[in-house]
Amino acid sequence: MPTYQAPLRDQQFVIHELLQAAEHYAAMPAFEAVEAGLIDQVLEENGRFATEVLFPLNASGDAEGCRLDPGTHAVTTPAGFRDAWQQFTAAGWPGLAADAEHGGQGLPHLLYTACSEMQCSANGAWAMYAGLTYGAYECLRANASDEQKAAYLPALASGRWAGTMCLTEPQCGTDLGLIRTKAEPADDGSYRLHGTKIFISAGEHDLTENIVHLVLARLPDAPEGSRGISLFIVPKFLPDADGNPGSRNGIACARLEEKMGIHANATCEMQLDGATGFLVGEPNQGLPAMFVMMNGARLSVGIQGLGFNEVAYQNAVAYARERRQGRSLRGPAEPDQAADSILVHPDVRRMLLTARAYAEGGRALSYWAALLYDQANHHPDAATREEAADFLALVTPVVKAFLTDNAFAATVECQQVFGGHGYIREHGMEQYVRDARISMIYEGTNTIQALDLLGRKVLRDQGAVLKRLGKQIQAFIETNGTRDDMNPFITPLADLAGKFGQFSLEIGLKAMANPDEAAAAATAYLRVAGHLLFAWWWARTARIALEHPDDPFYQSKLAVARFYFARLLPESLWQMQAARSGSDVLMALDAARF
Amino acid sequence: MPTYQAPLRDQQFVIHELLQAAEHYAAMPAFEAVEAGLIDQVLEENGRFATEVLFPLNASGDAEGCRLDPGTHAVTTPAGFRDAWQQFTAAGWPGLAADAEHGGQGLPHLLYTACSEMQCSANGAWAMYAGLTYGAYECLRANASDEQKAAYLPALASGRWAGTMCLTEPQCGTDLGLIRTKAEPADDGSYRLHGTKIFISAGEHDLTENIVHLVLARLPDAPEGSRGISLFIVPKFLPDADGNPGSRNGIACARLEEKMGIHANATCEMQLDGATGFLVGEPNQGLPAMFVMMNGARLSVGIQGLGFNEVAYQNAVAYARERRQGRSLRGPAEPDQAADSILVHPDVRRMLLTARAYAEGGRALSYWAALLYDQANHHPDAATREEAADFLALVTPVVKAFLTDNAFAATVECQQVFGGHGYIREHGMEQYVRDARISMIYEGTNTIQALDLLGRKVLRDQGAVLKRLGKQIQAFIETNGTRDDMNPFITPLADLAGKFGQFSLEIGLKAMANPDEAAAAATAYLRVAGHLLFAWWWARTARIALEHPDDPFYQSKLAVARFYFARLLPESLWQMQAARSGSDVLMALDAARF
Repeated sequence: MPTYQAPLRDQQFVIHELLQAAEHYAAMPAFEAVEAGLIDQVLEENGRFATEVLFPLNASGDAEGCRLDPGTHAVTTPAGFRDAWQQFTAAGWPGLAADAEHGGQGLPHLLYTACSEMQCSANGAWAMYAGLTYGAYECLRANASDEQKAAYLPALASGRWAGTMCLTEPQCGTDLGLIRTKAEPADDGSYRLHGTKIFISAGEHDLTENIVHLVLARLPDAPEGSRGISLFIVPKFLPDADGNPGSRNGIACARLEEKMGIHANATCEMQLDGATGFLVGEPNQGLPAMFVMMNGARLSVGIQGLGFNEVAYQNAVAYARERRQGRSLRGPAEPDQAADSILVHPDVRRMLLTARAYAEGGRALSYWAALLYDQANHHPDAATREEAADFLALVTPVVKAFLTDNAFAATVECQQVFGGHGYIREHGMEQYVRDARISMIYEGTNTIQALDLLGRKVLRDQGAVLKRLGKQIQAFIETNGTRDDMNPFITPLADLAGKFGQFSLEIGLKAMANPDEAAAAATAYLRVAGHLLFAWWWARTARIALEHPDDPFYQSKLAVARFYFARLLPESLWQMQAARSGSDVLMALDAARF
Repeated sequence: MPTYQAPLRDQQFVIHELLQAAEHYAAMPAFEAVEAGLIDQVLEENGRFATEVLFPLNASGDAEGCRLDPGTHAVTTPAGFRDAWQQFTAAGWPGLAADAEHGGQGLPHLLYTACSEMQCSANGAWAMYAGLTYGAYECLRANASDEQKAAYLPALASGRWAGTMCLTEPQCGTDLGLIRTKAEPADDGSYRLHGTKIFISAGEHDLTENIVHLVLARLPDAPEGSRGISLFIVPKFLPDADGNPGSRNGIACARLEEKMGIHANATCEMQLDGATGFLVGEPNQGLPAMFVMMNGARLSVGIQGLGFNEVAYQNAVAYARERRQGRSLRGPAEPDQAADSILVHPDVRRMLLTARAYAEGGRALSYWAALLYDQANHHPDAATREEAADFLALVTPVVKAFLTDNAFAATVECQQVFGGHGYIREHGMEQYVRDARISMIYEGTNTIQALDLLGRKVLRDQGAVLKRLGKQIQAFIETNGTRDDMNPFITPLADLAGKFGQFSLEIGLKAMANPDEAAAAATAYLRVAGHLLFAWWWARTARIALEHPDDPFYQSKLAVARFYFARLLPESLWQMQAARSGSDVLMALDAARF
């Protein structure tokens, strides 16, 4: 049977020791009450909710899936999902990071992120209902009118209502400029929407009394392409005069997709037949408005990857500890047993350590991104806010793509530890592989993340933000470079940091002459950027761990850090050489000859 | 809807131009009639069978799966599977490479391999029933008594009966020394077998009138461990006096596994309750006897990977050609369309070319291995036979593990080309990912292949066979090294060949002091060995292609070769650096701290 424990010790290490989050929050008026004790208490309680309520529904939810009643268009979620949502809302979890004025608890995004990781580990499909609801809250908080905020935010923050993002259409996913859904103005200031949206996660379900769809559509006079897209609120039930769910709106689930994984989350084709919508923000400004939600969602998808990575690791370790096959090549480790635990085999350890180094490195990087989010939104100093926002924008595509690529690789390695037992349903490993696969695709494929990183975040400002981040890394290198015990970590970090600056410059120069050069290098570039960031955070981790020579937790950190630098970081050699080969090698083959 | 076409042109290129197979066969009396025209005819006919009969049953077979009747223990395969088997046997395909004396056609293993690739592309789950049947034929041909051969081989060669391999038990998969199934001698010279076998592919089904199970079990006085295992024939129905299926034997399917993929192949838990078995070969010599089947099966699993790789590539190309999203970064390629085909995007091409370079490189390598098989078994010259057998033993683990790792990566890349459409069932891509995953696990996990390569095939003879193969590569380098047009291929090949020799030597020296050093390096070592072999075959491909400067087929070959050397071969930099870090980095972490 699958197993999961909240990784509280490592979360606390990252939050308290690596990020020193409570000290940062002491400087932010919004969060000055957020002390270490409070953080630990929230983590423990959410960990209990995730492990005791969500996790037992993970395998059963996958097996049962969601069901659509074609007559009523109602969707039934798997057994137990409604009850878990009731417990989720009763405990106030939906409002963890929502504002007090909307009934939320006003806690930092970092805490939301750590709780989200646990919910994703415990039940990735269930956690999507919660994640999309908070995403809709964030989008409306940033873009909606006061009246709209009053009508929707308390209901979203309490979890009474859920949210969705309705972007994709049959003819367009990545290229939202091709959206065809139409919004026609009505006499009362609202709009009537017609169109088809596909792949809408949590598009219809029975968890909440209402669903708030955020829909991208085109006004009649809209310019073509991505500059002609507007954002609308399209509630499943139109709020009545008291703000309660009133008449049924013309938006309904026409079809549930059969898919590879996340079966317990309803992936819907949504039909809008004259649905009433309310414009959010300015006409034709829908894409920038939605990007608030999409950027948050991209961090969340990275966290989802981290969640799958962690739970797959925990299960593979539990199996490896119990499974006995063969003998240590250095002679029987447990001669009184018929065979040794497979933990004696170096390659089993390589697979496990790969998953662990990815999980712990990913936790450090993504929790730092969440702290940047808090600083960008709540630090009293404008310059600090701006720098945090810049760094966050730079690392968001890395968190999304690097963590999800790693997570998929990690779930596959962990499945491999089980041998044939990993391929059958019983141990739950194949579900983690199937579920983790989607995170590389949605909220912008990982190719899109790579183009965003290299094109928008690095080349557009001639590497200005990258250089500022590079200075922070350089400062760490200089502070610690003279310590012998840091040498195994500082040397490869400094080496990669130097090469990465040169690598960025080269690509930038080539891309000025031919933009395909950036696109040809982007995916490899993101992998190298991810490794640079991981190397930095693993070196910072090692710096702390070296202060505790007698504590097994920190000695384990050092062992995993050494593994990361020895076995995973060198991927950057491959990716840099591959990227340097340029675009001709990709573009030479005539399209007809594929 | 998914699509598949037999890759006849590339198969012919590999067989006729790269391997010059017909010339080799002219020197082998057993195959002297095997001319190019005959080869082409067989490929075309089998391609028709695969595309027209098997491929239409692939998605439906996955959706329907197999069903076990718990009362009768009978297994029903998906709709159409029985009929396809009828057509398969009516056309004589099961006996393609079987001996004429058993009713087979006595054609080369290379031809069997090429047909098997197509059958795996078209319907991987169905092809396993055929593959296991031929595997059982091969095992009995090599190990059985004349009487046993007469009783079983014609039925297997005709496909009237099917075969299985019953090795794995709940407590052992990799470590077969732990087998507990018991075989007790009966008065009539047969044995009574008791035990439980799990993960038995094609263990029970409705395709044939009988099933020949090859079962590993322990005699009462057997030594412990892998030296105490014997091989038995355990037919589902005991042959009667006329050789027809007689009384039902005490072996039955107790359970079907729910698994990630290959749903249309019945993965059975087989219960042996006093089943009558017939000893094959000598007592306690079961493992070496079964290895005949396992080595063939390992090549076949590599071919299965190749099949998934090829069909995933074809589907991703078809989708990329039709799908329009965004614009070429160099300006609209088709301004009169709403968007360009996604083939204008360099990263889409990178994903497609990765799959293609893996497929075509894998085809060259694995078909060469099949030719080695033919030479090892049928060449009139003993020294040629021995060298072919040595090379085949060396490359078998590479074909199994490198091709299946590549195939899984390729199916994932091809799924990614589809974006969200790759995650849903409709396009069939997620099935290829799920199906391809098993090939990295069964017939010896890819870790076991890596240990086999490095430990048994390279270090045991101090690299003697590796050096002989290296000389062949060196001769090619020297012959072509002075040609300017071969420089882009010869330079990286020569570079890697030089590094690989040094790399092998280093690991060998370290392993003498500590065998864990070999185990710690093995997986990375196999990846590098795979790239060396791919580089050699891609360079040989380029050498031929350069002779045809005006033919688009050959120009495409050159483009894919350049892509391979530029973007995939450099993985060897990563793997060599990772492997060199040694075993301490894996073994340092205390088992309790995982």
